[in-house]
Amino acid sequence: MRKLNIAIIGLGNIGSYLFEYLNENKQILTEKNNCLPIVKYVSARNPKKKRKIKIKKKQWLKNFLDATKIDDIDLIVELIGGAEGPAKKLVFNALKNKKHVVTANKALIAKYGDQLAKIAEKNKVNLEFEASVCGGVPIIRSLKEGLIANKISKIYGIFNGTSNFILSEMDKQNKSFSEVLHDAQKLGYAEANPSADLNGDDVSSKLKILSSLCFNSFLNNNIYVEGIKDIDKTDIDNANKLGYKIKLLGFAEQVNKKIYQRVHPTLIKKNSYVASIDGVLNAVIIDGKPVGQSIIQGEGAGAAATTSALISDISSILRGNIKFPFSLSNKKRKKLKFHNIEDRSFSAYLRFEVIDKPGVLSNITSVFSKNKVSIKRLVQNPNKNKNVSSVVIITHESKNKSLMKIINQIIKKDYLIKKPKLIRINQN
Amino acid sequence: MRKLNIAIIGLGNIGSYLFEYLNENKQILTEKNNCLPIVKYVSARNPKKKRKIKIKKKQWLKNFLDATKIDDIDLIVELIGGAEGPAKKLVFNALKNKKHVVTANKALIAKYGDQLAKIAEKNKVNLEFEASVCGGVPIIRSLKEGLIANKISKIYGIFNGTSNFILSEMDKQNKSFSEVLHDAQKLGYAEANPSADLNGDDVSSKLKILSSLCFNSFLNNNIYVEGIKDIDKTDIDNANKLGYKIKLLGFAEQVNKKIYQRVHPTLIKKNSYVASIDGVLNAVIIDGKPVGQSIIQGEGAGAAATTSALISDISSILRGNIKFPFSLSNKKRKKLKFHNIEDRSFSAYLRFEVIDKPGVLSNITSVFSKNKVSIKRLVQNPNKNKNVSSVVIITHESKNKSLMKIINQIIKKDYLIKKPKLIRINQN
Repeated sequence: MRKLNIAIIGLGNIGSYLFEYLNENKQILTEKNNCLPIVKYVSARNPKKKRKIKIKKKQWLKNFLDATKIDDIDLIVELIGGAEGPAKKLVFNALKNKKHVVTANKALIAKYGDQLAKIAEKNKVNLEFEASVCGGVPIIRSLKEGLIANKISKIYGIFNGTSNFILSEMDKQNKSFSEVLHDAQKLGYAEANPSADLNGDDVSSKLKILSSLCFNSFLNNNIYVEGIKDIDKTDIDNANKLGYKIKLLGFAEQVNKKIYQRVHPTLIKKNSYVASIDGVLNAVIIDGKPVGQSIIQGEGAGAAATTSALISDISSILRGNIKFPFSLSNKKRKKLKFHNIEDRSFSAYLRFEVIDKPGVLSNITSVFSKNKVSIKRLVQNPNKNKNVSSVVIITHESKNKSLMKIINQIIKKDYLIKKPKLIRINQN
Repeated sequence: MRKLNIAIIGLGNIGSYLFEYLNENKQILTEKNNCLPIVKYVSARNPKKKRKIKIKKKQWLKNFLDATKIDDIDLIVELIGGAEGPAKKLVFNALKNKKHVVTANKALIAKYGDQLAKIAEKNKVNLEFEASVCGGVPIIRSLKEGLIANKISKIYGIFNGTSNFILSEMDKQNKSFSEVLHDAQKLGYAEANPSADLNGDDVSSKLKILSSLCFNSFLNNNIYVEGIKDIDKTDIDNANKLGYKIKLLGFAEQVNKKIYQRVHPTLIKKNSYVASIDGVLNAVIIDGKPVGQSIIQGEGAGAAATTSALISDISSILRGNIKFPFSLSNKKRKKLKFHNIEDRSFSAYLRFEVIDKPGVLSNITSVFSKNKVSIKRLVQNPNKNKNVSSVVIITHESKNKSLMKIINQIIKKDYLIKKPKLIRINQN
């Protein structure tokens, strides 16, 4: 029987779960993949920390980088995290020394994936990162294998459970952003420092990886990113009244031969599929030819779901299935130009909190008209404070740069009492 | 560069689409799979039929079975259809002669899959059948690879687009079964002879294949199958009033260590995900450990979506990824006992059309009580015809055999004027 020696580097929640899983499911994995997985070594920042899993003394590496040097290690599972520092060092050295690598590290892959893939290809080893995008949702394997026939024109969806939980709870529980964030932290759905989840960076890393796979291109940093920190209850209530939900969505799409990558809060129709995804779930929608539209949905985070993804990568290596990390050889991946969203057109929701005095509404609408943005719907809501009112405008499709011009012009007006809001609307 | 010679046997809509696709996408497939696919031969029942695709003279086989004999054929794509006859002969002979096989033939795989898999394993060739279940939805590859880590406790969903189209159109357009069936045939969503789609056989074949993959067992014929032919507009209207939709669902599930396979019209809550799947789409819901619940949705039929699935199988063979057709070696697959649904409990919807006379309601309810089935809700609807009324009962969870006893007892009553209806309710 063939066997494969594995080193798990990083023993947090995910590493420990994986360790246990591999020990308990050795037999079925061997039977399905025709190769025995052995967790030969582990390493963790704090080896003395109390853990529920039983690690033998001889399994501990003296130094985590030893994993890249020891001869009887075939595969390194990197669960340290972070684009730089020890994770980067480990993965680069591992591939250089012809070890297979499985990682859940989206930041590392989004930043150094191209360089790493080149080394993996040269050394004929695998670099697998299913767990780095949407946890247990088998989206990378589906793009690389199940949907391999397809020319993808658009991929989008909910890629961050924390943000989605916060937005759906604000909606359902009628609570403020900070109250819900506090709940999410208590429930373990948001980290103590949730900034990467809330500012869109987490989605941005995932989207870069996905769009590279969809468009057969190198990773590209031209991406518009906006998080959910500025969304407040008023916007969610307004959206509801207008027949929409607000979701943090990531999009990679080809429109009129131009590719865009964007991450931002989005108004989507209440009765759409994406609007129905609540809580910490992730969902990916793929438009491809010939298959049409496909949807994959599942648990996007947590030790259990992430282990499901890690095991699918490990199994693929057990079967001896050497593949290009990004589907194509480094020589065949394309250097595509990705476009700024400035020239892309959106229908948008804008909200202006203004002093309620004559001439304000006419001034606002004249700014729209000067920028050639036509208004589809305008609602002026009175405020408890009688001197203030809230002007909500839904526009027809207009170039992003025209919408930004409106914001930049109105922001200077003395009748404005709060930073204006702009939330793009998803048309389909 | 490695190359792989392919013979496509069967040139209907799907075969022709695949032929064209392989010619047009040779380069990208070669780059992604590191192996050149060549459509070397084809065969069709009527070679002289006018086709849009350009087939060279030398590509035509004299006899379709020659594909299994000619040395320079590596892979046979079987698109004849049917569990017996030429398709069976072709696939058995192909595997015996060490040719890889890709097929979209669910009837063949559901019936002879175990025998075929044994031959494929012995001869170290692939037998792939992604296209046989849910068209373009990459469910088989997801079960075998993306979700390989998981112990599956339940798989269910909408596996037949024709039935789903008919049920959702009856609901939306307020039309009768036969009117909608006629529409479906005109739109190409139902075949001239739609019986396999409507009587549940199509779903049954797909479900057998899926449950075998989910439970690591041999194919099993113990399956309860009921189609949609008896569903009428009244049931759909009643379901709506009670907060449900009616869908034809297939279920394979482990409940209290017993495995059940069942296909039947089902009442599901209006606000559930499955209820929202309208038209010809397919959707598969998988409950697995550790991943939790996953959903995969997409186009379940048609030449384009089916080609997407065929290409994923062909690509896997191009990459030289030899796998067991049902994930496990023949020696390791389990001989599991599958249970009759008689002992499984369901909450159910029952409808009795009765003569409206004193004592009838009391007689009906007494039959329920004698069979120890407790009633959760009872609605008596008056009919236009004043002498007739419709009694709709929703039960608490009760054994299937008790529900059947009620039907068998009430069917004999002289106050009954129509065959009674029983539709099971999905609890989650």
